[in-house]
Amino acid sequence: MEGRKVIGWAARDQSGHLSPYSFTLRETGPEDVVFKVLYCGMDHTDLHQMRNEIHSTNYPLVPGHEVVGEVVELGSEVKKFRVGDIIGVGCIVGSCGECFSCKSNIEQYCNNRIFTFNGTYKDGRPTQGGFSSAMVVHQKFVVGIPEKLAPEQAAPLLCAGVTAYSPLKQFNRTDKVVKAGILGLGGVGHLGVLIAKAMGHHVTVISSSDKKRVEALEHLGADAFLVSSNSAEMEQAVNSLDYILDTVPAVHPLQSYLSLLNVDGKLILVGEAPNPLHFDSVDLILGKKTISGSFIGSIEETQEILEFWAEKGLTSMIEVVKMDYANKAFERMERNDVRYRFVLDVAGSNMEY
Amino acid sequence: MEGRKVIGWAARDQSGHLSPYSFTLRETGPEDVVFKVLYCGMDHTDLHQMRNEIHSTNYPLVPGHEVVGEVVELGSEVKKFRVGDIIGVGCIVGSCGECFSCKSNIEQYCNNRIFTFNGTYKDGRPTQGGFSSAMVVHQKFVVGIPEKLAPEQAAPLLCAGVTAYSPLKQFNRTDKVVKAGILGLGGVGHLGVLIAKAMGHHVTVISSSDKKRVEALEHLGADAFLVSSNSAEMEQAVNSLDYILDTVPAVHPLQSYLSLLNVDGKLILVGEAPNPLHFDSVDLILGKKTISGSFIGSIEETQEILEFWAEKGLTSMIEVVKMDYANKAFERMERNDVRYRFVLDVAGSNMEY
Repeated sequence: MEGRKVIGWAARDQSGHLSPYSFTLRETGPEDVVFKVLYCGMDHTDLHQMRNEIHSTNYPLVPGHEVVGEVVELGSEVKKFRVGDIIGVGCIVGSCGECFSCKSNIEQYCNNRIFTFNGTYKDGRPTQGGFSSAMVVHQKFVVGIPEKLAPEQAAPLLCAGVTAYSPLKQFNRTDKVVKAGILGLGGVGHLGVLIAKAMGHHVTVISSSDKKRVEALEHLGADAFLVSSNSAEMEQAVNSLDYILDTVPAVHPLQSYLSLLNVDGKLILVGEAPNPLHFDSVDLILGKKTISGSFIGSIEETQEILEFWAEKGLTSMIEVVKMDYANKAFERMERNDVRYRFVLDVAGSNMEY
Repeated sequence: MEGRKVIGWAARDQSGHLSPYSFTLRETGPEDVVFKVLYCGMDHTDLHQMRNEIHSTNYPLVPGHEVVGEVVELGSEVKKFRVGDIIGVGCIVGSCGECFSCKSNIEQYCNNRIFTFNGTYKDGRPTQGGFSSAMVVHQKFVVGIPEKLAPEQAAPLLCAGVTAYSPLKQFNRTDKVVKAGILGLGGVGHLGVLIAKAMGHHVTVISSSDKKRVEALEHLGADAFLVSSNSAEMEQAVNSLDYILDTVPAVHPLQSYLSLLNVDGKLILVGEAPNPLHFDSVDLILGKKTISGSFIGSIEETQEILEFWAEKGLTSMIEVVKMDYANKAFERMERNDVRYRFVLDVAGSNMEY
């Protein structure tokens, strides 16, 4: 038995071009939440998958993994949501429930996690994302959006925001002013600056050019700006940072960034580079330094960043567009022509355009 | 004014050949401890410095940085030791006292640390190590050897032992059985196995060949042995370890070792490779894994490992030799023909040979 018919926008081939696509949701299970999609963030991962750049795309592909919606139907056993609630879904909609990661509530590291789109449910059916009029998701992977938060503001937090928040929360302390570095000022980086500032950190934005200096210092409230190609500036900042959130999804030399870290400092990678990265072991050994990785965040942490955002009264910088602008928006994203995140107004769009 | 005359064994040129060398200790300052050297461990770093392989050797060079001695004289302000006490000195004999590392009692990371040999005191004089009849060291860099511990047993703990202990103590917990990997079974590695076992860990030794299997399992008490070139064995052990202590001081591929780590697992480098190491960022990101470095240990931790060793009743595997065998011993060490550490019986040697 099938669930409701919906209309999404799907890529059909590796051109990645999106166009309307009708499909049917699964029947609502006892622990399922069915919701009308209101807004959905747009991310580089969507584009990579749409174009089969990770070589695992099943077409038609409906992207979207920063989904905010309004509950329209609930399975019989769902107690924590009510019809009309504003809820969110991030990057994953399933996991095994049995492994170390699942039992530790870090289910994003489960080897059998199910991605929100271009994933496969246990019954073999494909998952489809938030560029769609409605979705059905198991309640474990649904978070509540705080009332104080505008739904379009919440969207980027569900992937980009929690990607920055998850590794940064270990530095959320009140006994000292943590010296933070944010490397790269895109979707994740700009939210990283806002989160680190809200945690009381002294924030240095590190960028490959001077172009984003004013944005970083004036619009996002960073305390300092460092151009990585300016060796005099870099030299002056040696041994000054407690951590660097490295959002660069490309091969880049780590040595100069490691040199910015203080003893016991941490370089945290969240952007996957397509080829190996290099480092000198002596830089880690003599400085007690660490290179680590972090992947999105848990469902628990996703709920936390939403509450944190509401409590601190933060505002992400987004550009809200309609569905018929999606192809154009991805083109602009590819040119870094967005400050800093596109959010699709799905409910306000004519999906059959 | 000068202190007492002593006789050491020094390298005079990059042949590294050691021969008797007379020199004079500094005058005993108010916080100095003067001691007769009893035993001194022999380490690869000694050999590298003797041969100027790090390109910074000042000849004549008296090596030795795992020094156990008996106090013969004390400065006027030294209260914590008495004449006749058995004491130890490790890799460093000075630091700035003012920086973050010094104030955090991790003075081994001080940028102005003074190494026990081939270092330079603030007055410009060279430091000389433990291959010498006597030494003078500021009390801050002197540790007490517990009475239960034989002095020759204590020697390897002062560098190799604390190098393993310092990063492992974070895993000294009683709430679960930690799954440990020890990569490389030399001076540091064999002590790492003993320390990890004494902490209650399940210890897997990882080695490039099968040769050390019996030693690892039967002599050192490891729980498992893994040959890194055996891909079937390695595949079976994927995602099984909480940490790997990586003692390999050479370029080696990290990917297969990272694959052995569980989610949140830590690869800890203590051996400096002469060229860059490579890794795939996706391995760190999707596994929440960490590559970190650790450099010897603090004075506080050096005291801790001595107490730990005495309390647990551990025995390191050493071969005690006389001074006139030192050149031969370094030759054998270079061929890995030692199980696992040479210790010089300095007090029992004719230094003027």
